[in-house]
Amino acid sequence: MQTTGEVVAKGVVERSFEFEADGENVPGILWRPESATSATPLVLLGHGGTQHKRTPNILGLARRFVRHLGYSAVALDAPGHGDRVLDKEAADERRRDLERRVTSESGSASMVRSADEQGAVRPFVAVGRAVREWSTVLDLLEKEGDVVDERIGYWGVSMGTMIGLPFVASEPRVTAAVLGLAGVSGMPGAEEREAAARRCSVPVLFIFQWDDQLMSRQTGLDLFDAIGSADKAMHVFPGGHVDTPLYERDAYNAFFLRHLGR
Amino acid sequence: MQTTGEVVAKGVVERSFEFEADGENVPGILWRPESATSATPLVLLGHGGTQHKRTPNILGLARRFVRHLGYSAVALDAPGHGDRVLDKEAADERRRDLERRVTSESGSASMVRSADEQGAVRPFVAVGRAVREWSTVLDLLEKEGDVVDERIGYWGVSMGTMIGLPFVASEPRVTAAVLGLAGVSGMPGAEEREAAARRCSVPVLFIFQWDDQLMSRQTGLDLFDAIGSADKAMHVFPGGHVDTPLYERDAYNAFFLRHLGR
Repeated sequence: MQTTGEVVAKGVVERSFEFEADGENVPGILWRPESATSATPLVLLGHGGTQHKRTPNILGLARRFVRHLGYSAVALDAPGHGDRVLDKEAADERRRDLERRVTSESGSASMVRSADEQGAVRPFVAVGRAVREWSTVLDLLEKEGDVVDERIGYWGVSMGTMIGLPFVASEPRVTAAVLGLAGVSGMPGAEEREAAARRCSVPVLFIFQWDDQLMSRQTGLDLFDAIGSADKAMHVFPGGHVDTPLYERDAYNAFFLRHLGR
Repeated sequence: MQTTGEVVAKGVVERSFEFEADGENVPGILWRPESATSATPLVLLGHGGTQHKRTPNILGLARRFVRHLGYSAVALDAPGHGDRVLDKEAADERRRDLERRVTSESGSASMVRSADEQGAVRPFVAVGRAVREWSTVLDLLEKEGDVVDERIGYWGVSMGTMIGLPFVASEPRVTAAVLGLAGVSGMPGAEEREAAARRCSVPVLFIFQWDDQLMSRQTGLDLFDAIGSADKAMHVFPGGHVDTPLYERDAYNAFFLRHLGR
């Protein structure tokens, strides 16, 4: 893991880094409390489709976890995203397509039906590769010794759940996860996602939007139902894919505090 | 409103009172911060079927609202409950019947089916009378002048929602409500409850148990869906009717703080 830059702002150290995995260069960011003198809990932040490691909601969550909870946070560019975009035109087209969908009228039956018929979002991320990269970054952070302790959580919705659910189900170092904005169907990899959900055993907070333009209500309820964890909760809000209320960030904080401690 | 007793414990003043409404005597409790020198926000607490105004979860919530938020709280014995039980044998039989249901295996399909077929819980409370009594107690508290200000919330699940939903939908002084453990069907008064839900416009936090022995998942989702409020959220937990996790009390606090203020 190579540090490529470091800035400090309002008590938060933001360190950019990169590492190699399976022949690709993976850029990431580690946020740490400036005042931290020893290892802290860590939350891994999985961004959404067409987003990247420093997209505004990821940056905002990272800074909140650092400032409010004294945690560290890490985000990576997912395969084909952020600095890893190879075909910029195709990426821009995917972003415009997704924006069109999620800014369409919430709960429009035709959008949901059409999303379901098409398999909603075309495959645009290598899930297996992304899962391995998350485990690799944990290995690398562990080697640094005094950065993170054994209290590790994951936060990621939408594409962050497509990747995060199989990751959390297979990575014993992650002990609590916020997931959501995803269903069994409506995204590529339905069978694998349902199987991963059944293997999942750590506490999960699952977020869902009642009028999501990208998936039906039923497929989201089915995914929540499939999660094997005894300790799970689903928070449902009216509105579309990007309408989760900002106050829900307080529920993320409360969830991680409960499971990772102060 | 006549005060019938007052005790102070750990910063909480607990005042017992009674008043007459429609020819019946209604006993209630007002909890206040011992340190309060002026009006405070107020949460009305509607107990569940076969419970009463000082049942452990009601007492616990009242003390938390007073101690953690500086609020006041009020509970009443619902018609036919607590000190208003006329036929003690019939009340005991109802309590045993309900206990049998809610301690049966969670999510047992036969229990849910049988609950739906029977209309689940036999009519055991006069909803219209209970709704009027809540408005009356607000009138009486307003007359006292410096007890509660204009920030009034309601908390009540199960039978507390059978009564609370039509109350909140018709009482403009209530500006935020925690409801749940109820469906459109599965309890008496389905049509009236759905109509009240559609009239409801204040922020609502709706709690639901995924394996409730007294109602199907669908009927709970239908009731959440019917609630007319633009600002609503549903929190779903695994387990049966009485299995809502204790940590959810922190979500009640956060909800009322957000809507009633400090």
